[in-house]
Amino acid sequence: MSYDNPRELRELIRRGELSRPTCGLAPGYTQANLVILPKELAFDFFLFCQRNPKPCPVLEVLEPGKYEPVLTAPTADIRSDVPLYRIYRDGELIGEESEITKYWSHDLVSFLLGCSFSFETALMRAGISLRHIDEGKNISMYVTNIQTTPAGIFAGPLVVSMRPIPVDKVVRSVQITSRFPQVHGAPIHIGEPEKIGITDLARPDYGDPLEIKDGEVPVFWACGVTPQAVGLRSKPPLMITHSPGHMFVTDVLDEDLSIL
Amino acid sequence: MSYDNPRELRELIRRGELSRPTCGLAPGYTQANLVILPKELAFDFFLFCQRNPKPCPVLEVLEPGKYEPVLTAPTADIRSDVPLYRIYRDGELIGEESEITKYWSHDLVSFLLGCSFSFETALMRAGISLRHIDEGKNISMYVTNIQTTPAGIFAGPLVVSMRPIPVDKVVRSVQITSRFPQVHGAPIHIGEPEKIGITDLARPDYGDPLEIKDGEVPVFWACGVTPQAVGLRSKPPLMITHSPGHMFVTDVLDEDLSIL
Repeated sequence: MSYDNPRELRELIRRGELSRPTCGLAPGYTQANLVILPKELAFDFFLFCQRNPKPCPVLEVLEPGKYEPVLTAPTADIRSDVPLYRIYRDGELIGEESEITKYWSHDLVSFLLGCSFSFETALMRAGISLRHIDEGKNISMYVTNIQTTPAGIFAGPLVVSMRPIPVDKVVRSVQITSRFPQVHGAPIHIGEPEKIGITDLARPDYGDPLEIKDGEVPVFWACGVTPQAVGLRSKPPLMITHSPGHMFVTDVLDEDLSIL
Repeated sequence: MSYDNPRELRELIRRGELSRPTCGLAPGYTQANLVILPKELAFDFFLFCQRNPKPCPVLEVLEPGKYEPVLTAPTADIRSDVPLYRIYRDGELIGEESEITKYWSHDLVSFLLGCSFSFETALMRAGISLRHIDEGKNISMYVTNIQTTPAGIFAGPLVVSMRPIPVDKVVRSVQITSRFPQVHGAPIHIGEPEKIGITDLARPDYGDPLEIKDGEVPVFWACGVTPQAVGLRSKPPLMITHSPGHMFVTDVLDEDLSIL
């Protein structure tokens, strides 16, 4: 068994033999955010994702009740192949579980959404180092004053992640991430955090604060926390997600998501 | 009133003062394919589009019963602002109409899908002339042996459009159309029609045959006829579309759809 092969990695996770965050595992393969909702909310949530492709890039949506992602991870089981799940009832976290079979029903719809791990690999390959990875921290995330485009009951502010980028690498970082629209794509903002409603970079709304050194610019990308935050605001009777950092690992090569 | 302004153009169409095909009208603005289906089929059709983004690039999906595309054409009315509609019952064409108010109900969901007019403008601006436009013909379209990715009840072969491109412009035509994934994007195949199941270029399944001159290569793009053909194969109780060539004109600039 290998941590480098996504199928073998998922089997280890399914058997309960690996329950750590997935950062750095199966390098080169696309990892995904997971959101599971009842069918009566799924059409509106799908609309929300289509209208907000930067925070909510859809990799695969499963038909109601289906738990095998036949397009991005054939043979996988969405109910057991994520290292840690979060269960929410009426918008409140009621627990974390290593598998969710007991919550499953025929009317649940699973959404796999792109994750920034993919474009971070591309940035690092281009010689742009990433502080949160170098320092073993979680990335800084902020709630902005930018509203997402609502759909049905789903609405709320855009959440962004921030990476300090050396000023002479900012253009290159735009180019590189533009190639990956299915994993958040190009930045939504460069520099001047106050313009998007961020008053203090040292106090992120999620994750860890990160130092911005002389000669670096804070660059902001749409973040996959947005759909979870928006989902919870709507207080769905049941919503299941991955636990932060504990992603679903697909068979899709990062490079296959590149548009150019 | 001007044919160059999309809002004024839609008002003329709504008042019944313009009922021609929309090719060449409101240049620079994105035109869209229209598919309207009952809500009970809409989730599966939305899934089909998400799984087949090259033939079915989604520009906007309206909530059930809504007829104003607030994101791509605010103030428009999807029930009257297309010059000519086709009405299908159980997969059979039952008529063409200049407006569809009498068919409307609260459970109809409207899909606006990208149309190749947008990338054709970009090709022509780059000095790549297009035979069907030069000769005032309809483009050649073919049913291929490539299967789309099914979703729920929706499945069927990919339909492609063909444009003869001078061999020294083929690379450039790939680059230019790659910039526009929301209007079919890059070609799906270059040369060798038999490899995708096309036995006779002179006998297209839809549209007009087009001459391929010495030094030209047939280049194939995913075609917006695919979702209509796939939709009809499923024999929905009601399906309403635009009539070929009679597109919905949005307020979106072609250039705003470019990813780079």
